[in-house]
Amino acid sequence: MNAIDFRTDPSRYRHWRIERDGEVANLVMDVDPAGGLSDQYELKLNSYDLAVDIELNDAVQRLRFEHPEVRVVVIKSGKDNVFCAGANIRMLGKATHGHKVNFCKFTNETRLAIEDACENSGQKYICAIKGNAAGGGYELALAAEHIMLVDDRRSAVALPETPLLAVLPGTGGLTRMTDKRKIRRDRADLFCSIEEGIRGDKAVEWRLVDEVVPTSKWSEKVTARAHEMAARSDRPLGAAGIKLTPLVRKIEGDRLSYSYVEVEIDRTRSLATVTIQGPTQPAPQSISAAHTLGDAFWPLLVAREFEDAILHLRFNEPKIGVLLLRTEGNAQAVLDHDEFLLKANGDWLMREIRHYLKRVFKRIDVTAKSLIALIEPGSCFAGTLAELAFAADRSAMLIGTRTGDNRPPAAIVLGRASFGAYPMGNGLTRLQTRFLGEPASIDRAQEKIGAPIEAKEAAELGLVTLALEDFDWNDELRIMLEERASFSPDALTAMEANLRFAGPETMETKIFGRLSAWQNWVFQRPNAIGEQGALKLYGSGIQATFDKDRV
Amino acid sequence: MNAIDFRTDPSRYRHWRIERDGEVANLVMDVDPAGGLSDQYELKLNSYDLAVDIELNDAVQRLRFEHPEVRVVVIKSGKDNVFCAGANIRMLGKATHGHKVNFCKFTNETRLAIEDACENSGQKYICAIKGNAAGGGYELALAAEHIMLVDDRRSAVALPETPLLAVLPGTGGLTRMTDKRKIRRDRADLFCSIEEGIRGDKAVEWRLVDEVVPTSKWSEKVTARAHEMAARSDRPLGAAGIKLTPLVRKIEGDRLSYSYVEVEIDRTRSLATVTIQGPTQPAPQSISAAHTLGDAFWPLLVAREFEDAILHLRFNEPKIGVLLLRTEGNAQAVLDHDEFLLKANGDWLMREIRHYLKRVFKRIDVTAKSLIALIEPGSCFAGTLAELAFAADRSAMLIGTRTGDNRPPAAIVLGRASFGAYPMGNGLTRLQTRFLGEPASIDRAQEKIGAPIEAKEAAELGLVTLALEDFDWNDELRIMLEERASFSPDALTAMEANLRFAGPETMETKIFGRLSAWQNWVFQRPNAIGEQGALKLYGSGIQATFDKDRV
Repeated sequence: MNAIDFRTDPSRYRHWRIERDGEVANLVMDVDPAGGLSDQYELKLNSYDLAVDIELNDAVQRLRFEHPEVRVVVIKSGKDNVFCAGANIRMLGKATHGHKVNFCKFTNETRLAIEDACENSGQKYICAIKGNAAGGGYELALAAEHIMLVDDRRSAVALPETPLLAVLPGTGGLTRMTDKRKIRRDRADLFCSIEEGIRGDKAVEWRLVDEVVPTSKWSEKVTARAHEMAARSDRPLGAAGIKLTPLVRKIEGDRLSYSYVEVEIDRTRSLATVTIQGPTQPAPQSISAAHTLGDAFWPLLVAREFEDAILHLRFNEPKIGVLLLRTEGNAQAVLDHDEFLLKANGDWLMREIRHYLKRVFKRIDVTAKSLIALIEPGSCFAGTLAELAFAADRSAMLIGTRTGDNRPPAAIVLGRASFGAYPMGNGLTRLQTRFLGEPASIDRAQEKIGAPIEAKEAAELGLVTLALEDFDWNDELRIMLEERASFSPDALTAMEANLRFAGPETMETKIFGRLSAWQNWVFQRPNAIGEQGALKLYGSGIQATFDKDRV
Repeated sequence: MNAIDFRTDPSRYRHWRIERDGEVANLVMDVDPAGGLSDQYELKLNSYDLAVDIELNDAVQRLRFEHPEVRVVVIKSGKDNVFCAGANIRMLGKATHGHKVNFCKFTNETRLAIEDACENSGQKYICAIKGNAAGGGYELALAAEHIMLVDDRRSAVALPETPLLAVLPGTGGLTRMTDKRKIRRDRADLFCSIEEGIRGDKAVEWRLVDEVVPTSKWSEKVTARAHEMAARSDRPLGAAGIKLTPLVRKIEGDRLSYSYVEVEIDRTRSLATVTIQGPTQPAPQSISAAHTLGDAFWPLLVAREFEDAILHLRFNEPKIGVLLLRTEGNAQAVLDHDEFLLKANGDWLMREIRHYLKRVFKRIDVTAKSLIALIEPGSCFAGTLAELAFAADRSAMLIGTRTGDNRPPAAIVLGRASFGAYPMGNGLTRLQTRFLGEPASIDRAQEKIGAPIEAKEAAELGLVTLALEDFDWNDELRIMLEERASFSPDALTAMEANLRFAGPETMETKIFGRLSAWQNWVFQRPNAIGEQGALKLYGSGIQATFDKDRV
């Protein structure tokens, strides 16, 4: 398969349309059956694969940045007889385990981005279901703030994964049922057993949808509801959006370059070095100047580039197990940008950028690669970029300088950003999660805001894992990386998924932890993917044969 | 393999000794290498298999009931050079996936029982580590309230699963590190990569143990610490324990009978009917009368029998996928016993019994079988026994009476017990979990305490899934059970593990949800259990070969 590219824009969409009409936009799903990532399957009945989800992710993002006037987004189907049949089953049957897992993760992230838009952007999502919404189709609806279902005696919502496919409603479905819509567990159990789903008043009574509407009043009611919700939004009035222009990146051999982000792959050591540059321009003088910069504004551009790099590495570089996280640039320039962003938080665009950075850091938290931050002379782990060191599984910091290198010793500079701007999925900051057992360390760190913290002090404050002398650096790093490369990639993935999320669980962490972990388990079971498994045989007319042992 | 029997007592232990000395007891692990469940492996270096854990479970239970005078339990090794090498690796390498999963679940439950004793019994556990505590050995220590490590320059704590075996420290280890001991995530990551573990002061600094003690002062210090903790306990003074006499059960063909519990297996339908009898005697007149009854006291005996039945069904009947939960008896007698138990909560034994019932219901919550409660004329879903209906994935209740059956219509009778006596692992009652989205339903239910609730009202109150007329009963049940039997057992296990735990997560639910789910995933990966996998090849001298793809 060709490398998967996450960059797209509405002019290139094959599966979605954005129809804007003032404060309301329709996001219309109209999947091109021939537009999947592979020609081994057809995307019938508005079923989707990653190609469809890449566009959805792009649309959700653009609606936030390019269309401040849009207060309500209505997700609809462009097909007459179906809303969405969920993830394409032939695709799932043929995909590698790794692709399935990565695909579900990305789908989950996009649905969480929809919820994030509702919560933090004042951009509310309605899902208007006409025709059946099955499996991932209903899971998409579950991400909306308000679910409307037409009462035409046919249209239903359904989660038929267990009866039909021997897998789970695993992209948020089960967790959103119990924790978001708080559906009674026995009803959830029944619902997940009914292939044909539930429709009409019962769907409301069971909390599966928020309202059912007769066909005759459908369009009128959907529009009315959209405007009603729009009236409650805090999206700005009269604001002009900014354009997200195509990301420029260059791939030369094993090097992937953007303007502020560079990735260099070392295949012999199964690792990639990701280097992020601080801003090369001073922070803008005013909010309007920042708007004029648009997507050239450093915090936004670096977020877009870093996100694209992460997704590229996840999907296209499965054998790369370790990411070395590096930074370069001017610490003060990062802190100035941070301060600008935080002070201007009342501005819709600055708010969007901060939440976007938050989401990009969350992508790193759930990326199944070991993350090691290297803090060396010339590095720029300051403010927002310091967050990378706290997102890492380990960090190593050089003590003092290197011979022949006249740059000053490496220093971490904490800014306000690390104390609340970018909460993790568990609702805590990365420092709160790190210091769950020693909250006084958070206060000690906070007192250091703005002051350069060199290696020994950083170790003492608990901000880095290792402070190393120059003469130890190469050997220690070599041994650490060789060791990491020698471990089972699976054990590392599972270990990191546990160690990164101390403390409270939220619906979000439950989705990635409990639900995804079980789904990944099921995705390996012979009852699903074996030669006689349900996922494998779906559509063949042959009944699956199950090993009846309960595990 | 013969059926696994969970009934044991200290006279039959091969792996543990209880050495009592007034308020302190030593629980000495001294594993007989030849005493495992199978002769395919030797339990060297105090490594364990299920046989060892069955005894530990029994010991933890007996210490609570038989020895109210014991305020502190010190877990020690009976071997000179090792504390405990963890779960036996050859056993894990040879076990079926199902056995591994069930074994880990039971081990987790026993460790949680240790924590429950510390929290609710005033019986505090110290783990006194002399020699290495590796893998499950250190995970056992993590269950204790206080971990002591001898500073002899050799003894260390370690979690070498990832580097050595390509699996996780999956019986609570990772979760207790992050959430109980709140170890910094990067240190946890480092620690889990170091085969030989960490010893001495560093183990304290990293929060891995609570104190290190020089060899010369070891015995003295352990004793002193035990008495110090004993002084803070609220175990009763001068109380006499009760004897847990051998459980009497009879297996005849597919029927398993105890005094109050009966299990009947229907292999053609892959189900078992579990029938629980209410008390046949009136509630005791006084606390001393209840003590005199000892383990014949209904709440205690029924808990023991039901627990044994659950464990038997889990391990020895993997092909049984559905448990039909039935009750029989006199509702008032259950409510009287409940009321007695709750009023006498200040009495140590009544407290123990309530917490034991709580733990047995929790075992049901994490049992990987579909649970369907059948509420029919003659049934006794009252008070404590009503909890079975709320633990079930679904419940069906008959409306009215049956022709030819002159018993009154089925009725649920709620008691105080359902509103706080038996919290689930998530910290909520089963009714709170059930009604997460409609808390007013809890109040409505509470107003009905003591009043018989027949089928239609029960359905209206949301207490049952289905209220069925007699003429529908057989067909509806037959279809439901055939349907359930036709689904993939794996999808059902994973689905139930998600739907049963709405709302908050605790360390306990994180262990069973997030950590166990990931461990189960890893236990299936070729990198662990394939022909070239680390778990398979361990001890053979051959290096494992890993598929390097990161999933």
